[in-house]
Amino acid sequence: MLKKRIFTPGPTPIPEQVMLAMAEPLIHHRSPEFKEILGRVNKNLQYVFQTGGPVLTLACSGTGGVESTFVSLFSPGDTVISVNSGKFGARWVEMPRVFGIKVAEIKVEWGRAADAGSVMKVLKEHPHAKAVYLTHTETSTGTRSDIESLSGAIRENSDALVCVDAISSIGVEEFQFDKWGIDVCVTGSQKGLMVPPGLAFVALSGRAMKAMDASRVPKFYFDLKKALRSHEKNDTPWTPSISLIRGTDAALQMIKSEGIENTWKRHSKIASAVRSGLKSMGLELFSQQPSNALTAVWVPQNIQWQVLNGILKESYGITLAGGQEAFIGRLFRISHMGYFDEMDAIGVLYGLEAALSGCGFNLEIGSGISAAQEVLSANWKNP
Amino acid sequence: MLKKRIFTPGPTPIPEQVMLAMAEPLIHHRSPEFKEILGRVNKNLQYVFQTGGPVLTLACSGTGGVESTFVSLFSPGDTVISVNSGKFGARWVEMPRVFGIKVAEIKVEWGRAADAGSVMKVLKEHPHAKAVYLTHTETSTGTRSDIESLSGAIRENSDALVCVDAISSIGVEEFQFDKWGIDVCVTGSQKGLMVPPGLAFVALSGRAMKAMDASRVPKFYFDLKKALRSHEKNDTPWTPSISLIRGTDAALQMIKSEGIENTWKRHSKIASAVRSGLKSMGLELFSQQPSNALTAVWVPQNIQWQVLNGILKESYGITLAGGQEAFIGRLFRISHMGYFDEMDAIGVLYGLEAALSGCGFNLEIGSGISAAQEVLSANWKNP
Repeated sequence: MLKKRIFTPGPTPIPEQVMLAMAEPLIHHRSPEFKEILGRVNKNLQYVFQTGGPVLTLACSGTGGVESTFVSLFSPGDTVISVNSGKFGARWVEMPRVFGIKVAEIKVEWGRAADAGSVMKVLKEHPHAKAVYLTHTETSTGTRSDIESLSGAIRENSDALVCVDAISSIGVEEFQFDKWGIDVCVTGSQKGLMVPPGLAFVALSGRAMKAMDASRVPKFYFDLKKALRSHEKNDTPWTPSISLIRGTDAALQMIKSEGIENTWKRHSKIASAVRSGLKSMGLELFSQQPSNALTAVWVPQNIQWQVLNGILKESYGITLAGGQEAFIGRLFRISHMGYFDEMDAIGVLYGLEAALSGCGFNLEIGSGISAAQEVLSANWKNP
Repeated sequence: MLKKRIFTPGPTPIPEQVMLAMAEPLIHHRSPEFKEILGRVNKNLQYVFQTGGPVLTLACSGTGGVESTFVSLFSPGDTVISVNSGKFGARWVEMPRVFGIKVAEIKVEWGRAADAGSVMKVLKEHPHAKAVYLTHTETSTGTRSDIESLSGAIRENSDALVCVDAISSIGVEEFQFDKWGIDVCVTGSQKGLMVPPGLAFVALSGRAMKAMDASRVPKFYFDLKKALRSHEKNDTPWTPSISLIRGTDAALQMIKSEGIENTWKRHSKIASAVRSGLKSMGLELFSQQPSNALTAVWVPQNIQWQVLNGILKESYGITLAGGQEAFIGRLFRISHMGYFDEMDAIGVLYGLEAALSGCGFNLEIGSGISAAQEVLSANWKNP
């Protein structure tokens, strides 16, 4: 009986309540019953994004969600600034160019976050840039940017829209759409929101909605103006992913009952415990500004990732993610986002201790677990 | 205990096996386990479409699937011919124009199917048309076109690609992608394939794949060339809808074990029984060329659709679909596609007899059921 545990940075584990909601018999998407569900999802998404504005639900992956913002807000010849600090940031440089949008790229070394200084410099070189695209948590490197201060600096010095890829951070890291002055934020269902992949969520500010009036990129399926008109009536322009939306409804209710501040705190505490455990095992962390969503770890010298991964999967049922692009075989990534608790943190460290030992890595058995436990026990409730 | 029955032309009822497959714990989409599932889905989709070529699985609704074909195969300034015989045909006139593709529209009265003569006439007027878009089953009217003869006529007289919206017909009506010389065929998950909405499937011929080389419409998410490159490795360019694909895997295995010819025969027999039952109840059918996927029925004089619908839903747990556009309140539509059997046919007629009686409609109790039973019993197996 090999129990399976998926600790990849998307998909993430799905709560039983969400699975059961998705297995409910279908209801028609134009029925009052479904509109009630979508209405509740719309409202609870506002809570999770911390915004009073609309958050749209699209039937596509996160990549499709980001595309909807480029094609709905800008025109060929417009310039946007894109921060590229990993595999996904690189995609937001490539994608707008396809639609004739010019991109001023800010290249950041993998494992580091963009700093306000370099963003300001590029903004000065491109004073008419229509937007700055930032990545909150870069999934390829496990690195978090300080969106609050980046957005503050951008808003103070320009009229550019602040657009955030928060695909791996919503429901994980603190995110204040309205308070931080964000204009566009995209996330996916399969990360902090604890639902299988297939949905993208797009939050928009008043400024972002106004920008749509001037947009001349051809669009149909990803036309956010159409989506907004339907959203007002708790409806969608095309057939929605009914079952995934029911799952989202269940997941958002779980987050609401935990309280979003508590959700952020849980992730922060657990991420810190995992990092402490990994370091105590003698492993080296990759990121200079580590996220609370996932931790990227250097594969130790003389250890083969494929061998380590094989033991983790076959003997312990644990699925982690490898490195991407230039870091294939050199990094591995542990996700601790979404439906992930203290016991999961201890469990993944236990599995790693066992699998690393199996690979001949020299470590003191229990060193990772006990370091993590020390972090976690500081918050143990005494009755 | 009000048992719910959804007989709408998408979403359709989901088999228990499919629900359970979707509720399986997530596996990672880049794992060998998932590639095995996607590989089997790819193979079984070929069987269902009756093609040796690739059938791509996209994370979007059917509308997104059709968009992927327009943006991946054509260029601004190209002309395509689009048959508009209902709400969905109208969408395939509007959509390509958004991307700068010229459209020669063939308008067909709602409830009728396109005939080869009028298609040939427009093809003669537009000898350089790159494609003809046909709708196999128009969901708004319950009308079936004769794709085999339309395709034959087009292929004989021109080089235009034959593109078919088979969203409501795959897994319902006989469809022979290769034998009929089809170049592009799109369907959705929530119709004959018995899966919740959220996936589109796109089959492509060699000629269609070749046409992609010249395409200059800007595209990213819906770039079928990228999707094809991944498809060869049982992979996807963006995060796929893992759970919906697991559901599709289970559903396709059910169709395979029934045998696709038997699936078509079942739909034909049941549709004919439903039509016979409805007529015997004194109702009038809308379509001149009725499909086996759904039946559109005129709301009888002096009966209010809202009242009839309310009784069906609240007293009998049956959800049907109303008319669309100019036919709101004037038509209702009964879907009998997908996971729908003889007992369902008898059941929906029973519910209609009861609800119509409740509305004061003058009918002989049992007239619909017995007419349907007469059709069905001709095929009863004697042990």
